[in-house]
Parts: sequence; structure tokens; C-alpha cells
Amino acid sequence: MALTMYQLSIPALIRGLGVLTKLLDKAEAFARDNGISSGDLVNARLAPDMLTLAGQVQRVSDTSKGLVGRLTSIEVPRFPDEEKTLDELRQRIANTVAFLETVRPVDLEDSASRQVVLNFPTLKVTLTGEEYLLRFVLPNFYFHLTTAYDILRHNGVPIGKGDFLSLTA
Amino acid sequence: MALTMYQLSIPALIRGLGVLTKLLDKAEAFARDNGISSGDLVNARLAPDMLTLAGQVQRVSDTSKGLVGRLTSIEVPRFPDEEKTLDELRQRIANTVAFLETVRPVDLEDSASRQVVLNFPTLKVTLTGEEYLLRFVLPNFYFHLTTAYDILRHNGVPIGKGDFLSLTA
Repeated sequence: MALTMYQLSIPALIRGLGVLTKLLDKAEAFARDNGISSGDLVNARLAPDMLTLAGQVQRVSDTSKGLVGRLTSIEVPRFPDEEKTLDELRQRIANTVAFLETVRPVDLEDSASRQVVLNFPTLKVTLTGEEYLLRFVLPNFYFHLTTAYDILRHNGVPIGKGDFLSLTA
Repeated sequence: MALTMYQLSIPALIRGLGVLTKLLDKAEAFARDNGISSGDLVNARLAPDMLTLAGQVQRVSDTSKGLVGRLTSIEVPRFPDEEKTLDELRQRIANTVAFLETVRPVDLEDSASRQVVLNFPTLKVTLTGEEYLLRFVLPNFYFHLTTAYDILRHNGVPIGKGDFLSLTA
């Protein structure tokens, strides 16, 4: 029994984006209850040269839709990085989910062997679709999702591991 | 073209554990160069009620070997959570990798449909092997790997996204 590229990607990304929405819901409630500006949370970061919460959410979004752009022939929407509030970040996530929901299993059918070229500032990496999913998309998606969570925890938002995993009986 | 449970798990876990070792190497060099006790880094955390760096590394190790315990009939080694130095944490990772390297593709052959029960303090979750991999193992593994990275970044260790992804041309 084996798993398809679709099964491994789209449902997991939609699931993680749902988790992120709920984390931001709790952040909004925390800010309101404690008289904290929600903009302060949006601009919070763990180190001076790391991305802010907004940046982490934007990269979660981009990593998700980037998979579709690189592994299918579907045109990917552009979302400018202009969100300044928790509400705008939630809208960015909702737009990303709505786009991912248009992707069908057949769209990713031949993607495991497709060639993917990643251009970083000082590095050009050529991978198969399968390598791209396992070595870039999943680690990078969870990296930014977790760092968003870590920024919120570090700033006192009452969230826990259960919110991150979001498993149910 | 589809991917097996082995392809999706063991190589990705070994790869992530290798990344974690290199992050700890850089943490050790940073501590030495800046007259910081390596024990201070081992006990660092992002929030009072979050796990320390040691705890994050231990959970990366446990999530990795737990997959083998839950999806195969192989006996899994116990590693007590007693590491107090960066060097002991690196040894924990090395022992985990050595164990994962003994797992063969055939050991995970029928694991996608195997029933897995996760017992959390207030929640009992029943999943298929496939759901367990996609909803628990990978998110949880990258959660603790990323949080270890975030703790180090927050404490000034000069690491970057390139170290986390560890892609090569």
C-alpha cells in the first residue's frame, strides 16, 4: 500500500492551515483580553533577524501554494505580503485554503518525478517532485507553522501542543 | 507513482536528525566562543511552561523511534531523558539514527493500514498507520526540531534557514 503525492500534500497543508487559523483566533482573544495591540503580536519575532509572525504566516501560505505552482500546471494566485492585522492574516490563510481546495488528485498525478528547480539567493537546487515534497515543502511548511506557534507561546498566548496537533478521539 | 511508508518516514527522520546534530554543533561552538555555559543552552526554553532544548531533542528522538515501535514489530530501545550537555544530546541523536538505520523497507510494508492508538493524558486517539504518520509523526517531529532551532536562534546562535533545510546543489 502506497500513498500518492496528493494524499501526502494537499490534505496535510489544508489541515495545518486550519490549525494556524485557530492559533490566530486564540491570539486575537488573548490580545483583546489583555489590552495588547494585535499589531504587536503580528510584528513579534524570536530574534532580530528572524521573520515576524506575519512573515511566518505568509511563508506558510507561500509554501502551500508554491507546491501547486511547481508540481502542477495550475496558475497560482499572488498574495502580496501586506497583512498588518491578525484578521488580515486569517484572510490570507482562508484564501490559501480556498485555492488548495480547487486542486484535484489528478492534478498531482505525475508530479513525483517532475523536475523542480529552487532558486535561493546563493544556491540553485534541482530536485524531483518527490524530493521537493519531502525535503522542502513539508519541513518548510511545518517550520513556519511551528515558529508562528513559538512566537505566540513566547508572547504568552495560552495555546498548547494539543492545539498544534489538533487530534480528536 | 506512489510513495511507500518507509520512503516517507525513515529517510526523512534520519535527515532531520542529521540537521539537528549540526545545529547542536554550531550551538557548542557558539557557547565556547562566547563564554556561555553549554548547560545554559541545554536548559533554555521559549516560555516557562514549554520544554527546554533538551526536552525538544528528546521528543525528536522519541517521535522517531516511536514510529518504529508503533508501525513494526521491532523492539525499540529506551533512552532515559537524562542528557545534561550538548554532547550528551548529540549522543542521543546518534543512538536514534543508529537504531533507525536498522529498519528496512519491508518492516514497514503493511503499516499504512495498521491500527495505532495514541494515549494522551486527556485524549485517546485511534488512527491508521497512514494517518499516524501524516497527522502525528511528521508534524510532531518537525515541531520539536523547529522549536530546538527557534530556542537556539532566540539565544543568539548563528544558524539560519539554510541549516534547517540543508539542501545542496
